[in-house]
Amino acid sequence: MQVKKYRLAEQCFIVQGAKAVQETLDSEFQVLMLYGTETFLQGVKSARRAKEVAEVSEKELTALGSVEVNQAALAVVRMKPRREPELLKDRFTLVLDDIRDPGNLGTIIRTADWYGVRTILASPETTDVYGPKVINATMGSFLRVDIHYTNLEPILARKLYPVFGTFLDGENVHQADFGKQGLIVIGNESRGISPGVEKWVTRRMTIPRIGRAESLNASVATAIVLDNIFR
Amino acid sequence: MQVKKYRLAEQCFIVQGAKAVQETLDSEFQVLMLYGTETFLQGVKSARRAKEVAEVSEKELTALGSVEVNQAALAVVRMKPRREPELLKDRFTLVLDDIRDPGNLGTIIRTADWYGVRTILASPETTDVYGPKVINATMGSFLRVDIHYTNLEPILARKLYPVFGTFLDGENVHQADFGKQGLIVIGNESRGISPGVEKWVTRRMTIPRIGRAESLNASVATAIVLDNIFR
Repeated sequence: MQVKKYRLAEQCFIVQGAKAVQETLDSEFQVLMLYGTETFLQGVKSARRAKEVAEVSEKELTALGSVEVNQAALAVVRMKPRREPELLKDRFTLVLDDIRDPGNLGTIIRTADWYGVRTILASPETTDVYGPKVINATMGSFLRVDIHYTNLEPILARKLYPVFGTFLDGENVHQADFGKQGLIVIGNESRGISPGVEKWVTRRMTIPRIGRAESLNASVATAIVLDNIFR
Repeated sequence: MQVKKYRLAEQCFIVQGAKAVQETLDSEFQVLMLYGTETFLQGVKSARRAKEVAEVSEKELTALGSVEVNQAALAVVRMKPRREPELLKDRFTLVLDDIRDPGNLGTIIRTADWYGVRTILASPETTDVYGPKVINATMGSFLRVDIHYTNLEPILARKLYPVFGTFLDGENVHQADFGKQGLIVIGNESRGISPGVEKWVTRRMTIPRIGRAESLNASVATAIVLDNIFR
């Protein structure tokens, strides 16, 4: 199928749905191929920014992509070239230690965007950001948050900023002063933060528990830490 | 298949994985059928609490259920009989206005359990709590949180407690006094809180946004509101 050919040959990924496709056309990402319904293509202003455009039916559109129903558009988009991550001063950066679930990764990116976090470092084992489930779950936030896949330990070993991690024991996030900058480590869904990364954590934090669940979902824990930093 | 026969005929659902199955055996839920590997069945203390027990291989176990790999156990469990929800004084209750995604529903139940919320009211259109994806995402918290499917408006119309809902305009959750009790409405993933429910909201709340995402995931928003209540 044409979409698959593009994805494999040219380092591309797909974006689905009216809003996300429109936002992608308006972004710095390069759209190689835009499939849209007649209605979508008539309404969209920036369709000429796509290299190729094809008008398709809703049925064809849904068949091309991965979502249950797509009534508007699908874009084949070129991945950004890999760059070295910048750890910015006066900023918080998320560090994903092996997040495997595409829904979690997408939700973490969306939440990062809500709180203005612009950079995410992800271990090489973290699920691929360009998978369609991840891109869909970001709700367009993949356009505004940079994610870099890299070995985490060499970066943490530079000891540039405080490294926060959540554990069942640690400082109460409700009372902590997070300061102005730092790295926030989010652990794997079942194993938590790995020992190799844990040894670089300088601030062990805890989200206070009132009830009896053993742990929180990774994207939920990310959101609670960010909400406590940016309050 | 036997599991399916049970589910349909006897109002049953399935629980998968060592920890969740063990917790279910230790709970007040009735286990009709327990499938376990030799190792699991040797280690488990409460296997006799299941009506029937069968020893199976890991391969058979995985084939019976819905998860990618199950190396331990699967239980066929009887649903609890429907009861009238109790809206407890001095407690917070979640009100789900049409949550459709199984992962979101499971994560909401898990988060509710973390914060000690024991009761959830769900609109009849909310996804079925007994679906395997939901049960898996709760990580065992379905055992401790009661979810009642009911028409929301008649309950909200009783005006017993404050009704909180999150919108893009409203009181800042970081500064609000939530008091000791109330109903917290969580809206649908794409449409938010429905107009019929919105008219009963007495406290419009906002989660402050620093960045540019248009909205937050439903389970993330739930977690942030609960973390701001219980701090």
